[in-house]
Amino acid sequence: PSSYSITLIPGDGIGPEIISVAKDVLVLVGSLEGIKFEFQEVLMGGAALDATGVPLPDDTLSAAKQSHAVLLGAVGGYKWDKNEKHLKPETGLLQIRKELGVFANLRPATVYSPLVDASTLKREVAEGVDIMLIRELTGGIYFGEPRGFGTNENGEEIGFNTEIYATHEIDRIAHFAFKVAQKRCGKLCSVDKANVLEASMLWRKRFLAIAQEYPDVELSHMYVDNASMQLIRNPKQFDTMVTNNIFGDILSDEASMVTGSIGMLPSASLGASGPGLFEPIHGSAPDIAGQDKANPFATVLSAAMLLRYGLGEEKAAKRIENAVVDTLNRGFRTGDIYSAGTKLVGCKQLGEEILKSV
Amino acid sequence: PSSYSITLIPGDGIGPEIISVAKDVLVLVGSLEGIKFEFQEVLMGGAALDATGVPLPDDTLSAAKQSHAVLLGAVGGYKWDKNEKHLKPETGLLQIRKELGVFANLRPATVYSPLVDASTLKREVAEGVDIMLIRELTGGIYFGEPRGFGTNENGEEIGFNTEIYATHEIDRIAHFAFKVAQKRCGKLCSVDKANVLEASMLWRKRFLAIAQEYPDVELSHMYVDNASMQLIRNPKQFDTMVTNNIFGDILSDEASMVTGSIGMLPSASLGASGPGLFEPIHGSAPDIAGQDKANPFATVLSAAMLLRYGLGEEKAAKRIENAVVDTLNRGFRTGDIYSAGTKLVGCKQLGEEILKSV
Ligand SMILES: CC(C)[C@H](C(=O)O)[C@@H](O)C(=O)O
Ligand SMILES: CC(C)[C@H](C(=O)O)[C@@H](O)C(=O)O
Repeated sequence: PSSYSITLIPGDGIGPEIISVAKDVLVLVGSLEGIKFEFQEVLMGGAALDATGVPLPDDTLSAAKQSHAVLLGAVGGYKWDKNEKHLKPETGLLQIRKELGVFANLRPATVYSPLVDASTLKREVAEGVDIMLIRELTGGIYFGEPRGFGTNENGEEIGFNTEIYATHEIDRIAHFAFKVAQKRCGKLCSVDKANVLEASMLWRKRFLAIAQEYPDVELSHMYVDNASMQLIRNPKQFDTMVTNNIFGDILSDEASMVTGSIGMLPSASLGASGPGLFEPIHGSAPDIAGQDKANPFATVLSAAMLLRYGLGEEKAAKRIENAVVDTLNRGFRTGDIYSAGTKLVGCKQLGEEILKSV
Repeated sequence: PSSYSITLIPGDGIGPEIISVAKDVLVLVGSLEGIKFEFQEVLMGGAALDATGVPLPDDTLSAAKQSHAVLLGAVGGYKWDKNEKHLKPETGLLQIRKELGVFANLRPATVYSPLVDASTLKREVAEGVDIMLIRELTGGIYFGEPRGFGTNENGEEIGFNTEIYATHEIDRIAHFAFKVAQKRCGKLCSVDKANVLEASMLWRKRFLAIAQEYPDVELSHMYVDNASMQLIRNPKQFDTMVTNNIFGDILSDEASMVTGSIGMLPSASLGASGPGLFEPIHGSAPDIAGQDKANPFATVLSAAMLLRYGLGEEKAAKRIENAVVDTLNRGFRTGDIYSAGTKLVGCKQLGEEILKSV
């Protein structure tokens, strides 16, 4: 039987609760599919700051690098919000993305039919939305240098960042996106601000060049301001979307809210080689932490992405996804997706119901 | 009677049609309110490129600077889309904003009750939305230096831009925003990405400092990714919002689409002194240009903003706004806002109906 080492990073807030559910699901699916997992639990974010003084301890990073895949809960919380940048939980997350080289962030925005009414969009607009948004994750303004604070010629304080892309960074995310689009409907929409930003002009130029190698994919371009409208006006026009780090941050959250299923949405961050990083797209929800109220579906679905994209275990991935749909169909809901006529349960019990559905 | 010189910039696409309607409305309202206008029509954008080779001719800029206010239709079109940056219609727009020093861009996102069903959001979510989004317009990544193309140490091509804010740029938009919030509900939400970007950290620091001078305004902060979700989840939570140039570009378009009334929404761009720039938030719609199908409401409402914010003529401004509501109530619609049971008319006839309602 296959055997994999998995790094678990519960993180902060509801992180430990949802990771615990996802771990149980992995173990059960593994035993049914003949897959053995060895788990190592490590600290990151606020939990790591409190215990070690840094948001990404060396031990965590080396454990992650030596494992086959990393499953993350969430990081951050009010407690550390005023910390200086190098002592923010979020900085740990950015560092591990960079260190693992996971440049391609896959964020599906899928409407689950039983939850379509949770969308604030009209049923006919939201129903059937199924977007795969690919966000460049290790470049752009998140990491660009120079950055920092300084003083300008008038003696005033300034704050600055650099949005920068090199050809190879654009090319690798482009190839990645074209390949994803090939396996889906063959439509790829690249989002940029090429009417204003040089970084976007190079982005568009490279996408146009690389499109030559994918004659079976229909490439379109959209300005980011227009994309933020079109996601609301008619989200079903999109199949696969690709964009830079900061635009992807904004648009992926928007797309997930369009579905109304934000507690359901997983993500995968992949590099050229080495372990991928898998995490729900929602945050650490400190206000409900420790109250057994968290929705573990997105983390469980992240574990499915881990199996599919991180380990190539498609059958086991599908088994998890089917179990999630079955649990939904049996009517079990946490508070965030509850509606009249369904059964409200806590995080733990939902976990048990998912296990029954596996 | 007061007398004002107004620079009209029809621009491209549907620009000339909508500006012509707005001009007629200004003339009629002026004659009723004892206000005299002197109009000067000048070129910008693609029209200027074709006639003079540059997107913002010196004559246009000096006419604008010498006038009391500038009313713009829209610029841009497929024809010039592949032009190099300094020969893009959009570059003319960015230049005139910078040259006029109009750092504060007011973008109301208001749902017009008769049009609430045009929103893709559920009626109960969209109804009553009334957001004033203030976008910083002459700083940040749109104008930051260094910018351009180059070669990195590996010999690869790079494209880069600089997101940069100096204290005085943040302070002046902050004061502006707090004052707007004071006149509205006293709630101001500042949107940034202070968990990642130094430019945003300085932004937040200055807003916190300046908040001391406005104890009657309740200041909150929101990350841009969260804001892009919250605008869909519950737009009514927002009253006055303020953000940087690029986030404002994205969020203001999103907010306007939330209302469903995008053909109705005006904007005002104001500086510390000198003429303001007033324009609809929609684009030049080259696909319907010259077909008498354009919706002139947003431009007419921009003329109202011109009267209010540019000239201090509140009574005349209100007269226009009332006329727009009256025309809507009498059932007249262009194609973009048409629904069963209303009267479909062209741009010209809608203009005549607005005149009747004045
Ligand atoms: C927490 C934050 C640094 C992070 C980001 O901006 O990338 C988050 O918003 C995300 O999208 O994963
Ligand atoms: C046309 C373009 C340069 C412009 C901008 O990005 O500012 C437009 O999108 C706007 O919002 O007015």
